[in-house]
Amino acid sequence: MLSLSKRAVLMPASPIRKLVPFAQEAKKRGIKVYHLNIGQPDIKTPELFFEAIRNFNAPVLEYALSQGDLKLIDSFREYYKEWNIDFAQDEIIITNGGSEAIIMSMMAIGDPGDEVLVPEPFYANYNGFACEAGMTVKPITTKAEEGFHLPSKEYIKSLIKPNTKAIMISNPGNPTGAVYTKEELTMLGEIALEHDIFLIGDEVYREFVYDGLKFTSLMDIPGIEDRVIICDSISKRYSACGARIGCVCSKNKEFMKTIMKFAQARLCAPTIEMIGATALVHTAKEYFEEVHHEYQKRRDIVYNALKNIPGVVCEKPMGAFYVVAKLPVYDAEDFAKWMLTDFNIDNETTMVAPAAGFYATPGLGKDEVRLAYILKEEDLVAAMDILAKGIEAYKNR
Amino acid sequence: MLSLSKRAVLMPASPIRKLVPFAQEAKKRGIKVYHLNIGQPDIKTPELFFEAIRNFNAPVLEYALSQGDLKLIDSFREYYKEWNIDFAQDEIIITNGGSEAIIMSMMAIGDPGDEVLVPEPFYANYNGFACEAGMTVKPITTKAEEGFHLPSKEYIKSLIKPNTKAIMISNPGNPTGAVYTKEELTMLGEIALEHDIFLIGDEVYREFVYDGLKFTSLMDIPGIEDRVIICDSISKRYSACGARIGCVCSKNKEFMKTIMKFAQARLCAPTIEMIGATALVHTAKEYFEEVHHEYQKRRDIVYNALKNIPGVVCEKPMGAFYVVAKLPVYDAEDFAKWMLTDFNIDNETTMVAPAAGFYATPGLGKDEVRLAYILKEEDLVAAMDILAKGIEAYKNR
Repeated sequence: MLSLSKRAVLMPASPIRKLVPFAQEAKKRGIKVYHLNIGQPDIKTPELFFEAIRNFNAPVLEYALSQGDLKLIDSFREYYKEWNIDFAQDEIIITNGGSEAIIMSMMAIGDPGDEVLVPEPFYANYNGFACEAGMTVKPITTKAEEGFHLPSKEYIKSLIKPNTKAIMISNPGNPTGAVYTKEELTMLGEIALEHDIFLIGDEVYREFVYDGLKFTSLMDIPGIEDRVIICDSISKRYSACGARIGCVCSKNKEFMKTIMKFAQARLCAPTIEMIGATALVHTAKEYFEEVHHEYQKRRDIVYNALKNIPGVVCEKPMGAFYVVAKLPVYDAEDFAKWMLTDFNIDNETTMVAPAAGFYATPGLGKDEVRLAYILKEEDLVAAMDILAKGIEAYKNR
Repeated sequence: MLSLSKRAVLMPASPIRKLVPFAQEAKKRGIKVYHLNIGQPDIKTPELFFEAIRNFNAPVLEYALSQGDLKLIDSFREYYKEWNIDFAQDEIIITNGGSEAIIMSMMAIGDPGDEVLVPEPFYANYNGFACEAGMTVKPITTKAEEGFHLPSKEYIKSLIKPNTKAIMISNPGNPTGAVYTKEELTMLGEIALEHDIFLIGDEVYREFVYDGLKFTSLMDIPGIEDRVIICDSISKRYSACGARIGCVCSKNKEFMKTIMKFAQARLCAPTIEMIGATALVHTAKEYFEEVHHEYQKRRDIVYNALKNIPGVVCEKPMGAFYVVAKLPVYDAEDFAKWMLTDFNIDNETTMVAPAAGFYATPGLGKDEVRLAYILKEEDLVAAMDILAKGIEAYKNR
């Protein structure tokens, strides 16, 4: 029998894209759908990106270096310096988005059967990346009531087994919006030292931290530089998701040598997008200030609207552009689907992402949804109003 | 002990890029190096690509569909129709170059410990892709004296074990320049049916077939459509290596569903490069005729020069833009290195790729090199002249 691999069967489909057919059906019926279900920002990509691309005039679109265009690597180095992080040129390798940075990192540190610990709820595609590497994501459960902050050191240590190769965090957190404190990261550093494991930091939302809170990178924790891996991307920072330009950075030379072997096998990242990305480092401070201001405003709209819906549980999210909220419903996936199939207000409805797909522990998150606040103010206000009325109507069905 | 994965250790470094430091050293000493070691063509990328990119004017560089831009998929469909191959829209998924198409295909059909049979010498990165999937490439040895054509059906069948998941071919062949006959492909089809395994066709050099020979695709063999996987790329066809746009195509629905799950996990291929690639389907016939004419001329220059070097063994390569030749030296890697460190004519030398890295069987190919005929006529003539004199001088050291 012609058969596919076990991996093919185990590989999870995207839980975020699961309800897309129902949204398409709704649109066919003439319903306008507010998409709070995906992390595609509406913010303009800096014009610098497009200018650089328009000015590209080499006659041949050649392979780039496997490591990535050196000018782009230097532009990342310049960027990190502003965060007081010092990476040498050979400590950065350009990847096809943050996604490839994470896949390669997992492949470099784990073999089939190995595990990586991740605070749950977590970015659902971590499961897919782990599956590709033959590894398993083991959850460190965190709770809406606690703003999705980490449990005790003792508890996290109790989850570590001989085949645990790393702890991976998304900070600021997708889907939770949680921003880890320096104390939390120091604790993770201690655990990594005590158990001799890697720490992978998915820090693509570094700029998106609100209310004057200071972001702390894993690179800011002294004494663990040999075991920290930073996965990064320009996607959210410059609203350039389609460029698929990311990078993996580490001071661990053996790790970087391995990443380089993976990078060589697939030859290089896309040349034109790298040229656009290189220009982005010169993006004006005002751009970030404006974007930051805009997102903080959106965060407030969503959070305040949620707090006004009876029965909703959520702490104020401090970063990224997501929030996970517990809704007063039994099955958030059924609710999210119902919003698309059975509910609308003046031919408009709101699409949310059921949060169960962000949990590894069966049964958790069943009554939770993730909202991405990636729409402009007036749309967000309308979307949240529809959501509130939808919850009310769903309960009274 | 903080340790990397077994895969990290097993992962091969690129044998093609191994001698690069010696070339860099030579250049520092003022030596001009003719690069016959890499497959980076000097042919101009059609202007259509750059025009399309310059005309891109969406304000936000958004994620594309995970499957790939539908217009690009349709342009591939149009392209295949000209080859009398009919793919539906859901039978094509856009990948980050042909590389990702192959990695994903391997991951979809094989688990750690499984094997894929490949005629050797083969494109060295197949080893890396297999390693990432935890699989092993098992060689079907072919010989320079036989123009690298396939051995008997009986012999190939004898190599198949219960954990053999597929036979993969590069056709036209990188690094051999061999073009498989319809009879050879039919034989592979019979084997695939008899043993219920997949056939993966890396057909990125489809256009590069010389002397009026007709290219046959695995898709042209009737009765095996459920087990054929085509891995493709625009890199060589349109001299757009840096775009990293490829695709994986199959009529096997379960296989394509799996590829779609891998595609969703890494979100999408680069948006801008897809826009450029979509335009390429309208490339004028004259472009291909000119390129084809140019490469056939280059092939003749290289082949004729090789035949005039005493002791060299090679059959006339019929496709791609490579040739593997047996040289009258004991250790071709040492020779290739020596050409960079100890030899030059009027401060010019030629760089070739030692072929041992293209073999899986230890010891094979030690006296062989791969030449890529990707330079313009006068440079190629000079490079081959230097190579001939280098071989002579190396023998008389």
